[in-house]
Amino acid sequence: MAESSPARFGILCCAEIARKVSRAIALTPNATISAIGSRTIEKATAFAKENGYPSTTKVYGSYEAVLDDPEVDVAYIPLPTSLHVKWAVLAAQKKKHVLVEKPVALNVKELDAILEECESNGVQYMDATMWMHHPRTAIMKEFLSDSQRFGQLKWVHSTYTFLGNSEFLKNDIRVKADLDGLGALGDAGWYTIRAILWATDYELPKTVTALRGPEWNEAGVILSCGASLNWKDGKVASFYCSFLTNMAMDIVVSGTKGNLRVHDFVIPFQENVAPFYTVEGSRFGELAISIQPAPSEQQVRIDLPQEAFMIKEFSNLVGNIKEKGCKPDNKWPTISRKTQLVVDAVKASIENGFEPVEVIY
Amino acid sequence: MAESSPARFGILCCAEIARKVSRAIALTPNATISAIGSRTIEKATAFAKENGYPSTTKVYGSYEAVLDDPEVDVAYIPLPTSLHVKWAVLAAQKKKHVLVEKPVALNVKELDAILEECESNGVQYMDATMWMHHPRTAIMKEFLSDSQRFGQLKWVHSTYTFLGNSEFLKNDIRVKADLDGLGALGDAGWYTIRAILWATDYELPKTVTALRGPEWNEAGVILSCGASLNWKDGKVASFYCSFLTNMAMDIVVSGTKGNLRVHDFVIPFQENVAPFYTVEGSRFGELAISIQPAPSEQQVRIDLPQEAFMIKEFSNLVGNIKEKGCKPDNKWPTISRKTQLVVDAVKASIENGFEPVEVIY
Repeated sequence: MAESSPARFGILCCAEIARKVSRAIALTPNATISAIGSRTIEKATAFAKENGYPSTTKVYGSYEAVLDDPEVDVAYIPLPTSLHVKWAVLAAQKKKHVLVEKPVALNVKELDAILEECESNGVQYMDATMWMHHPRTAIMKEFLSDSQRFGQLKWVHSTYTFLGNSEFLKNDIRVKADLDGLGALGDAGWYTIRAILWATDYELPKTVTALRGPEWNEAGVILSCGASLNWKDGKVASFYCSFLTNMAMDIVVSGTKGNLRVHDFVIPFQENVAPFYTVEGSRFGELAISIQPAPSEQQVRIDLPQEAFMIKEFSNLVGNIKEKGCKPDNKWPTISRKTQLVVDAVKASIENGFEPVEVIY
Repeated sequence: MAESSPARFGILCCAEIARKVSRAIALTPNATISAIGSRTIEKATAFAKENGYPSTTKVYGSYEAVLDDPEVDVAYIPLPTSLHVKWAVLAAQKKKHVLVEKPVALNVKELDAILEECESNGVQYMDATMWMHHPRTAIMKEFLSDSQRFGQLKWVHSTYTFLGNSEFLKNDIRVKADLDGLGALGDAGWYTIRAILWATDYELPKTVTALRGPEWNEAGVILSCGASLNWKDGKVASFYCSFLTNMAMDIVVSGTKGNLRVHDFVIPFQENVAPFYTVEGSRFGELAISIQPAPSEQQVRIDLPQEAFMIKEFSNLVGNIKEKGCKPDNKWPTISRKTQLVVDAVKASIENGFEPVEVIY
């Protein structure tokens, strides 16, 4: 059987994150960088050079040119969030598969415009939430799915915080109302919300209630916030996200029989080995002077970075569509939309004075 | 200088937890078990024998008899919560120092009756929150107090859950409306609330808001719940407690510069060595493909169990009062009252439909 040809990526803009994803594409056998576009040809040329792009890569002075290139299969869109809807919709119309950075849209209405266009044009959609593709994630999920070891899920907590320096807090896209109005909620909060949905098998909560005490910058962009989520069956979750606190990337999932903890879920401390911790059947020792057993560490070793696993998965889906006539996989649009719905609900709850907001797909 | 004579403990009832504390008294040089009282002399005699009490221990068939014994300095009260106010007040009136199990009272009004009686009789009051006295707790606090390493506190999360078996959920004191009406909130929640107050230097939050989705038993006793707390300066905290989930005992404290994590704060996994984890100055590596540094583990080795450190501290305070004419230390009543105020606020918030409740000392 002939090996499928690699998915040909066109990169829409020279964002910092595009450097990481470009490296991942280069590391992934079934993907290749076909084109890069920026608002000026000079910027695109410099970026291609700095990032060691193959000499075959086409360099364009506009995003449109990338989308018009028939040798581009995939539009990777790391533009500021407020520009996603315009460029993702156009990409889909031009029959490009869409890999878009998170937060994917300013609200679910915008996201739906993207998703509808992808669906009607038969192209694959995925948001670039890289940790979803780390092999550790699937191994952790096996534990959560094991009714003997983990039992029934009762409680999830997730945190993603990092300390933005003064330059970040002044000039980063993520703190600009006109570029990424969701601030820390859309950036760090996106991951924590996805983590909660991942742990709960993507069952949407009944209600979402923001925690009191979010912080905003002068432009009204969220710099820190949290929320609690609850489900009809009694499951409860909470998260906290911030640009104002030293880095933490935690998921803690508690079941009736076991717990899972991970402290670097968004980006592993090390690229090639990722730990997580499980414990099951915890009990008090005699006289309750000890607890048995202590959690045990498991390490997942990988030979590609997690973002390369993402590119590989996306390229596989593109290959299936291009060469085997498969339909786009609906899993990724669905979980992206659910994540956006919860983001929107948290924002709505903050805006309505921390009242609960119902979440309906 | 003559060594002060040991504090003489009288134990009020044969609760399971009294076995652990009796062992701790036996292990503590400046404390001794002077008397044990139960509702029947047979029960008290059997308990004294089973727990290897010294032959000099007096055994009584009532609690009053313990309080009337002039050779008892301290009343240790592990009775069901609903009986604390009666027996702690009587103990204070009889000039016994009061070490009372948590939750200390069903509400702050009851606790105030105890505290006022202790104050007016010049006796020491302390709640038996053992982990406060583990040397690890002070070492962790040093980290949180270090403005260079930890920075400014922004976020605290604490969890204490354990899985009650069917016998526990049917018959334990802690699920009986007439014995311990606070259920998981008063038991496990007490620890998580204390942990949050400990981390925030006992600064009371401005408001407390219960998380939606608590669980109750048929008698209306809370089996699981959570809350968020917030402070005027933007600090936010949350906790979750439950009798329905595998054991977790976590505190995570996030500052601008560092984080602290501990996963066995209530009772260490091992009696003689207790770990915790800190990280400071976390940053993204080149291309954000890694995070540096990973948290590092510190281990605190001890030669006495944490409950013996509690007995030692309490006995020191008693010795200071008895032999040096010192006044009772006001720290312990104050933090006990603050903990109870937050417990009450969570309960009030659950009862008022999850609206925020102001906390005023």
